[in-house]
Amino acid sequence: MNSTPESTARGFLAGEFEDRLRRAQTAMDKAEITVLLLTTEPEIRYFSGFLTRFWESPTRPWFLIVPRNGEVVAVIPSIGAHLMGQCGVGDIRTWAAPNYQDDGLSLLADALCDIVPDGETIALPMGLESHLRMPLDDFDRLKGRLGERRLASDDGIMRQLRLVKSKAEIAKLASACQIAGRAFARVPEIARSGVPLSEIFRRFQVLCLDEGADWVPYLAGAAGQGGYGDVISPATETPLSPGDILMLDTGLVWDGYFCDFDRNFSVGTPVATVRAAHARLIEATAAGFEASNPGATAADVFHAMDQVLTGGQGGGAGASAGRLGHGLGMQLTEWPSLIPADHTVLEPGMVLTLEPSIETAAGNILVHEENIVVKSNGAAYLSQPSDAEIPVLEP
Amino acid sequence: MNSTPESTARGFLAGEFEDRLRRAQTAMDKAEITVLLLTTEPEIRYFSGFLTRFWESPTRPWFLIVPRNGEVVAVIPSIGAHLMGQCGVGDIRTWAAPNYQDDGLSLLADALCDIVPDGETIALPMGLESHLRMPLDDFDRLKGRLGERRLASDDGIMRQLRLVKSKAEIAKLASACQIAGRAFARVPEIARSGVPLSEIFRRFQVLCLDEGADWVPYLAGAAGQGGYGDVISPATETPLSPGDILMLDTGLVWDGYFCDFDRNFSVGTPVATVRAAHARLIEATAAGFEASNPGATAADVFHAMDQVLTGGQGGGAGASAGRLGHGLGMQLTEWPSLIPADHTVLEPGMVLTLEPSIETAAGNILVHEENIVVKSNGAAYLSQPSDAEIPVLEP
Repeated sequence: MNSTPESTARGFLAGEFEDRLRRAQTAMDKAEITVLLLTTEPEIRYFSGFLTRFWESPTRPWFLIVPRNGEVVAVIPSIGAHLMGQCGVGDIRTWAAPNYQDDGLSLLADALCDIVPDGETIALPMGLESHLRMPLDDFDRLKGRLGERRLASDDGIMRQLRLVKSKAEIAKLASACQIAGRAFARVPEIARSGVPLSEIFRRFQVLCLDEGADWVPYLAGAAGQGGYGDVISPATETPLSPGDILMLDTGLVWDGYFCDFDRNFSVGTPVATVRAAHARLIEATAAGFEASNPGATAADVFHAMDQVLTGGQGGGAGASAGRLGHGLGMQLTEWPSLIPADHTVLEPGMVLTLEPSIETAAGNILVHEENIVVKSNGAAYLSQPSDAEIPVLEP
Repeated sequence: MNSTPESTARGFLAGEFEDRLRRAQTAMDKAEITVLLLTTEPEIRYFSGFLTRFWESPTRPWFLIVPRNGEVVAVIPSIGAHLMGQCGVGDIRTWAAPNYQDDGLSLLADALCDIVPDGETIALPMGLESHLRMPLDDFDRLKGRLGERRLASDDGIMRQLRLVKSKAEIAKLASACQIAGRAFARVPEIARSGVPLSEIFRRFQVLCLDEGADWVPYLAGAAGQGGYGDVISPATETPLSPGDILMLDTGLVWDGYFCDFDRNFSVGTPVATVRAAHARLIEATAAGFEASNPGATAADVFHAMDQVLTGGQGGGAGASAGRLGHGLGMQLTEWPSLIPADHTVLEPGMVLTLEPSIETAAGNILVHEENIVVKSNGAAYLSQPSDAEIPVLEP
């Protein structure tokens, strides 16, 4: 079922970025946008390939200007000049950040005023899941230096561009999934009754690295008798006990692309309710998989899963998570959301997580997650799908 | 020299958060601010202890309201209710996010209008190093729903609060540093001539986890003949060669607090220029350490280091990085910056990195970094300071 080969080729062929720019410019033409102004890691990487963990530092703002005509312009701190210079971006303008008087603002305003005629539009991502990564004070100052140029929403252009992944992107996502799959297969080496959850979290990250992850930006999970209370907590020091259900949910990165799926394990023989709940989650996942055809909507996939989980009550089972899956790519979660209100039409190249959850007792849940890609003739798994039987760890 | 004991006590005593709130409220009183509105991970964690890696997902906005009188109010997605409930926050208001019609906006606006009388001030961090983690469209909508309430800058209150660390915070920072120190001591196990840099990065993260890191949000570094071109790049596949200088710079986390320091290694016997450059960096670090006394400024520490590096030319050596160190805490980099323009007066409890850099040849640099805490009678190292001699790896 896992037909997407693992990639070992890092980076992209130059055509990848030309294609992204061309697609962006076509959309900008239509929306009468003269430039996109981008400030966040995935947005800037999308057009430049600028891949660094340095975004962990909140000190410096970074800017990329994507024009309707011509090439992108990077307006960045000098500490990034060497790396950006290796990315094939020809026009790189730098300042020695941090500068308390003028932290790149004049450089950015001048670049925008050069490129954008008065009266035309500078667009930024402003919709759900977006944010502006620069100080609000500086954004206000910038507005005052743009003359008659208009700041507006990008009308979802960035979201739309990133929704459909290229073949090279899908190969990287497949690599991340396969690395995580190998790590999950080794969980019995590190998890048994008596081992503290914190130690399991630490050892699982080691397994991810050992199997080829570049880094592990996300690991959450839980363990509890017959289920767990939430899926976003860091580890406690509590040791595993017989009857616990252990869940590990990882987002590891390979060459800048994430996987995001989880696995459940029963410490010792599971009780019948847990076995049944796990089987139901797998059944719901399969229903979501079958529904993930081109032309179907994100809502259709939600309803297919919800039918199995609740008989179609509309998300009761997934109430605390708020959705039954989401997009996946350069970020752990991306557009769309699998909710009744999301009418995104699926297209080949979209990568989704299917993430059903079910209540096993009051306040106790089980969550399962797989990663898939939409193809012209239906979906394909990127993660190796789990069996209905919950795997058992030594008690 | 390393006198701060490693902590193994996770979390904080309840008094920690009461004290933070009291300090905030005193500052808000003075600035005539009725509430702080916070949207980012460290800001929300600072007042609640809400620690999760779930921030990796950009989907959902999170809000914390810190009032001038009374207790904090969390306005958060329902997926976080269980964990926030364990944080001692009494007033938690949730919605099932994502909601495309109203993604927490009404809930937030209602909470703000409840707490803040018309005509009074809602303050947000707006200065350097801050950003607003919510969609700009929603921020505009929020403005329209606040009546005569005023949105304003927090006047640096959040920055000021976080600048001085408590004893419990310093103990966590010390733990992170000591874990990284043990990992650095084991680099000879993983790095020698012929090993690809990407493999060294992967193995070093394993060492960090093995020595007790909860996770490793930051690892950068480089390797090159006699120095390297930048300090923020991810690993290449190039194997180490004799004559290379390997630099690894890590920000690992223990219980929510970072270390941030690096180590340089010479593959085989270093040439005289490299030995001298490394010794100069250690000398500059020592000068910065000696200058880090209460009452001195961040600029004073810069000048003490710059004197050793350039004879006082004002930052020529650190030009591409833009500074010679910075604050450290819940984030990899925090206020202040060690630059001539930063007049922050050092106080006991401030934690800094000293990060001198030096050019070894055109475009080739060496960077060294240590972590220190300012005490009443001077500075103390949190990292175990390096010797002047650059350590040598098997060629």
